[in-house]
Amino acid sequence: MKRDDNIDELISNFLNRDRKALARIISLVENESDIARQVLSRLCKSTNNSYIIGVTGSPGTGKSTLITALVEYLSAKGLRIGIISVDPTSPYSGGAFLGDRVRMRDIILDPKVFIRSVASRGSMGGIAKAVYDIARLYDAYGMDYVLVETVGAGQSEVDIHRLAYTILLITVPGLGDSIQVQKAGILEIADILVINKSNLGGDFLKVNLNMMLNSMTRQSGWRPPIVRTIATEGKGTAELFQAIQDHREYMELSEKLKEKRRNNIRYKIQNLIESQLFKLSEKILTPKEIDKIITDVLSGSKDVYTVVHEILEPIIDKIEKI
Amino acid sequence: MKRDDNIDELISNFLNRDRKALARIISLVENESDIARQVLSRLCKSTNNSYIIGVTGSPGTGKSTLITALVEYLSAKGLRIGIISVDPTSPYSGGAFLGDRVRMRDIILDPKVFIRSVASRGSMGGIAKAVYDIARLYDAYGMDYVLVETVGAGQSEVDIHRLAYTILLITVPGLGDSIQVQKAGILEIADILVINKSNLGGDFLKVNLNMMLNSMTRQSGWRPPIVRTIATEGKGTAELFQAIQDHREYMELSEKLKEKRRNNIRYKIQNLIESQLFKLSEKILTPKEIDKIITDVLSGSKDVYTVVHEILEPIIDKIEKI
Repeated sequence: MKRDDNIDELISNFLNRDRKALARIISLVENESDIARQVLSRLCKSTNNSYIIGVTGSPGTGKSTLITALVEYLSAKGLRIGIISVDPTSPYSGGAFLGDRVRMRDIILDPKVFIRSVASRGSMGGIAKAVYDIARLYDAYGMDYVLVETVGAGQSEVDIHRLAYTILLITVPGLGDSIQVQKAGILEIADILVINKSNLGGDFLKVNLNMMLNSMTRQSGWRPPIVRTIATEGKGTAELFQAIQDHREYMELSEKLKEKRRNNIRYKIQNLIESQLFKLSEKILTPKEIDKIITDVLSGSKDVYTVVHEILEPIIDKIEKI
Repeated sequence: MKRDDNIDELISNFLNRDRKALARIISLVENESDIARQVLSRLCKSTNNSYIIGVTGSPGTGKSTLITALVEYLSAKGLRIGIISVDPTSPYSGGAFLGDRVRMRDIILDPKVFIRSVASRGSMGGIAKAVYDIARLYDAYGMDYVLVETVGAGQSEVDIHRLAYTILLITVPGLGDSIQVQKAGILEIADILVINKSNLGGDFLKVNLNMMLNSMTRQSGWRPPIVRTIATEGKGTAELFQAIQDHREYMELSEKLKEKRRNNIRYKIQNLIESQLFKLSEKILTPKEIDKIITDVLSGSKDVYTVVHEILEPIIDKIEKI
């Protein structure tokens, strides 16, 4: 991948919807090669045709089965779907232990569907970055929908989901409210609440979710609907898609979609600046210099706050003068 | 807090174990004021008398009750304990809905115990930073033990726990293995596994945990023991403390404790450099300039990767020449 004509070929194959080219370019992006930047800058002109959906829920909520049902439903309409899985317990990420495997294989083999998992062991900031880039690539590739799947625990995953235009929170009866309440951060940004496995009950959960929604002050004019599904039987998928369509319409009419797209670019700009500066931070001190500082700090002759301050002050002064 | 004599007074009160001074200094640190750096640099000479214990587990595992039992046990031995709670569902963090409140109040009123919760809604990088600083302050204050409590989900929380010398993972029978397995990242760094509420069973969970331990390749010569507790009745607390002592001895004899302390300082140096550069990144582009770029990117006339690259290249060049 040194010569330009190879990049040309790769991009040309990508634009012809060659899956191998898509996979290759995603790998380049994940490795943060300089070629990746060139490819991204050529491919990711603002097309914005994909609609990005975030899907989150604890392990055991049947999230993968629900995604499978939704993807089958969309594919049957002739739509293209790109999946990004950040969930380490997801069968899509290879961490499978649950799931309707036969149906899952069907969607994996579907030429209109592409699945990519993102390693969840790296830094979350890095993952958010990769998710953004892959979503842009799916868009350029011609996907109608991009699904981003996470476990949804922690602030960093909330950050990942800020990228999505519509966010689904999957819950399930009987998993224990305390565990699902833990996702308060996610509940606040969820646009549609799904009670999956609703054959196991769900009336009590629905009352609880409604109570939580009532106690929240939402600025927007959208109140998240609660959709009941039984993903294993495909029940409720049409209703779920309708809810997604309703929310999409709301987003478009209220100009919130435009705002979201602007915010995504803003986020990406900050993200790119930060990650460049991060790389820089590794250059400021050599490992040997750091070892020397550690020894001084451990011996008590220096303190870490003063040492770092003294190192950075002149550098920051210079940058501020640029 | 402008004049130096006030800082002197604050530090002097702190060194006399005035709880208000401790609370005030922690607040200064959380607000990242410049005074904080001065105070930290004067207080946090390398004493390293505190032993740092990480405590993690899902909501519903009885983590808070277990911490209460452990803290009572330590306090009865005349030891001082500082608690840092990062868990948004923890009663210590004010997000209480469970817990043995009467006993909890006892430890809150205990003059040998100090509890501080850290807001979990900020960036996780920021939390790790605050946890480090508070742990250093507890150490300078004369705490024998520092307990860091988190939910333990996600890579960022794993990062927080890398600070601790001994890490406890609290599990409970019947919560669903899939949920607890989700903490694979935590399991790998856990030093002691606790089966709490073991009156509810736990044989099956123990088999499972042992299987997971067997399937993991641990570099170190320490195999995490599995301790059974019933925290509500104080059962197993002595055994748990013994396991902590055993692990501490292992850490000291194998020089791993020394290594850990060095790594903590290394982490703090990187962390300080990164957060300084982060602040800098906000100065590189004004909000107006960012808005202009967003409009260009949305119209398709520019791509975000190239724009940011062009802005940063000259800055990075300059820094590399310093």
